[in-house]
Amino acid sequence: MSPSFFSGLSRRTLLAALVMLPAFPGTLVPISASAQTVTTDSPLPSWNDGAAKQAILNFVAAVTREGSPDFVPPAERIATFDNDGTLWVEQPGSTQLTFALDRVKALAPLHPEWKDKQPFKAVLENDMATLAKTGEQGLAELVLASHAGMTTEEFEKIVIDWLATARHPRFKRPYTELAYQPMIELLAYLHSNGFKTFIVSGGGIEFMRPWTERVYGVPPEQIVGSSIKTKFQMRDGRPELFRLAEMNFIDDKAGKPVGINEYIGRRPIAAFGNSDGDLEMLQWTTMAGGLRFGLIVHHTDAEREYAYDRTSPFGHLDKALDAAVFNKWTVVDMKTDWKRVFVFE
Amino acid sequence: MSPSFFSGLSRRTLLAALVMLPAFPGTLVPISASAQTVTTDSPLPSWNDGAAKQAILNFVAAVTREGSPDFVPPAERIATFDNDGTLWVEQPGSTQLTFALDRVKALAPLHPEWKDKQPFKAVLENDMATLAKTGEQGLAELVLASHAGMTTEEFEKIVIDWLATARHPRFKRPYTELAYQPMIELLAYLHSNGFKTFIVSGGGIEFMRPWTERVYGVPPEQIVGSSIKTKFQMRDGRPELFRLAEMNFIDDKAGKPVGINEYIGRRPIAAFGNSDGDLEMLQWTTMAGGLRFGLIVHHTDAEREYAYDRTSPFGHLDKALDAAVFNKWTVVDMKTDWKRVFVFE
Repeated sequence: MSPSFFSGLSRRTLLAALVMLPAFPGTLVPISASAQTVTTDSPLPSWNDGAAKQAILNFVAAVTREGSPDFVPPAERIATFDNDGTLWVEQPGSTQLTFALDRVKALAPLHPEWKDKQPFKAVLENDMATLAKTGEQGLAELVLASHAGMTTEEFEKIVIDWLATARHPRFKRPYTELAYQPMIELLAYLHSNGFKTFIVSGGGIEFMRPWTERVYGVPPEQIVGSSIKTKFQMRDGRPELFRLAEMNFIDDKAGKPVGINEYIGRRPIAAFGNSDGDLEMLQWTTMAGGLRFGLIVHHTDAEREYAYDRTSPFGHLDKALDAAVFNKWTVVDMKTDWKRVFVFE
Repeated sequence: MSPSFFSGLSRRTLLAALVMLPAFPGTLVPISASAQTVTTDSPLPSWNDGAAKQAILNFVAAVTREGSPDFVPPAERIATFDNDGTLWVEQPGSTQLTFALDRVKALAPLHPEWKDKQPFKAVLENDMATLAKTGEQGLAELVLASHAGMTTEEFEKIVIDWLATARHPRFKRPYTELAYQPMIELLAYLHSNGFKTFIVSGGGIEFMRPWTERVYGVPPEQIVGSSIKTKFQMRDGRPELFRLAEMNFIDDKAGKPVGINEYIGRRPIAAFGNSDGDLEMLQWTTMAGGLRFGLIVHHTDAEREYAYDRTSPFGHLDKALDAAVFNKWTVVDMKTDWKRVFVFE
């Protein structure tokens, strides 16, 4: 899914998500402890044999085999991945929204006026119902208070520090440990076959860049995401980029192909998503003539992760699930296609 | 220099440039035919031995030698290059402006009303004085008529077709042959030393991407430039990106570090420019602590190319020339530092 820096979501979705935050609904079951032996000799060891794995192997073989009618030169082997819900856990609510709420709490001592001012008062009192009532305007204020008003270097440090201590409410682990092991293997498999992989996320570009290389092997220059504007300025004789309280780009839904074209400048030959926020990216990638590959991660595993699709506020998967049939995209059934979900299983 | 997709330039500069277009002032001397033997065993064969070449070699040696106090891991070896006037010829006027004028002429049969409508009438009559009088508004109309109103794929084809037939007024060669051979060697030298090179230009990003890989070895996903907005849409069941008559980003002056941060997400360790449009990029790159490298191409060679700096409307080099002294940037004296300018010499 793509929280779109919050702004891209509908009011209804945002409010629903906010309301969900304290509840962690549904699937509070123990984490599976069935550690699997990972064999690294064959590709994709955390994938069970089946149609999804086979479709990936077939596609990569076809586009990389010299002389194949579907051969694609390495320079054109561009693959794009959504992040939230495709590469790491997005439930029970946006990690970045959790970050914003935590930031407001951390900054509260510097802002004594927040104790009596919405939406901050609601955040500080953990009153999610009241926070939801402040609507988009309230959420926008939270975003600006937490994401703008500092230099890019300062924001990077804030993100790194937060990720070092924040823990997922169900899994009790750092968010960066909640990357899907089968997808990490898929990224590595594509790299080893000459692909250049990009993340194309509705999330904030500078919320991802500090850690994507370490976790996914995808460097900062291969991240596309939503962003706020920055301003170059000299301060005390040193140049800096200051983060402004103004949206720059929403990399979600129809914005994803726009972002791909703007940042990458090539049309991908493979795209990977999990929600309606990825529909247009998958269309742009696969409806282009030639052998193309589209894949949707379908969250069907309430025991090991979460089960959600057509009615979920985050990771809403409805139109794209129907389009997958029409366009012959591969749909991953997490429960049966993934031998393990996380590396710590 | 950075024509900023025309919009970033001052009115004065734009008008001056327009007026210059038909005149090709100054340096209409024969192209030097003194072909040099290029030795490929040593790096930078088209550079004369001297302070500039030595500064490049010293910097690359320092950041690539393991155990050096200035060692930089390959992933962080980001180098950014301006395009117009740094990698290829920008005189006597912006190549992209020439393209816009040619496009208007090519489209004229589809627009009979242009015969009586400014600024188109002036273009069709080669009346640059009247065109200049239409001012920024007139130029904006030319940009939109020539750069918007088609899909990204259609625009790419238009650029490729134009470059295949357009000839530089003085050198009588395709513009893509007017890349500076010493800079092509420098790009290759940096690549071979683990650098990732990006072009960061005021010019249109989609005016560059169709040819930069072939000419410079820099792929589309490593181009940062000015852009207009695009819109994703389905037409006859096929997805397309349609180019809108609306500016998206001006990648010039203080916009260059902004663009670098937005597209690349890493701070360069080396930057190369030739005008005041590159000043902030050079500041952002070099004023960061650690060993950093800034270089300015100073156009001092009216015989082989052009001689211009502080008073030139295109490639205006004034503040950045002074800043080079203050910041210890390397200034290339084209006349003495480059053994050859073009590969065809």
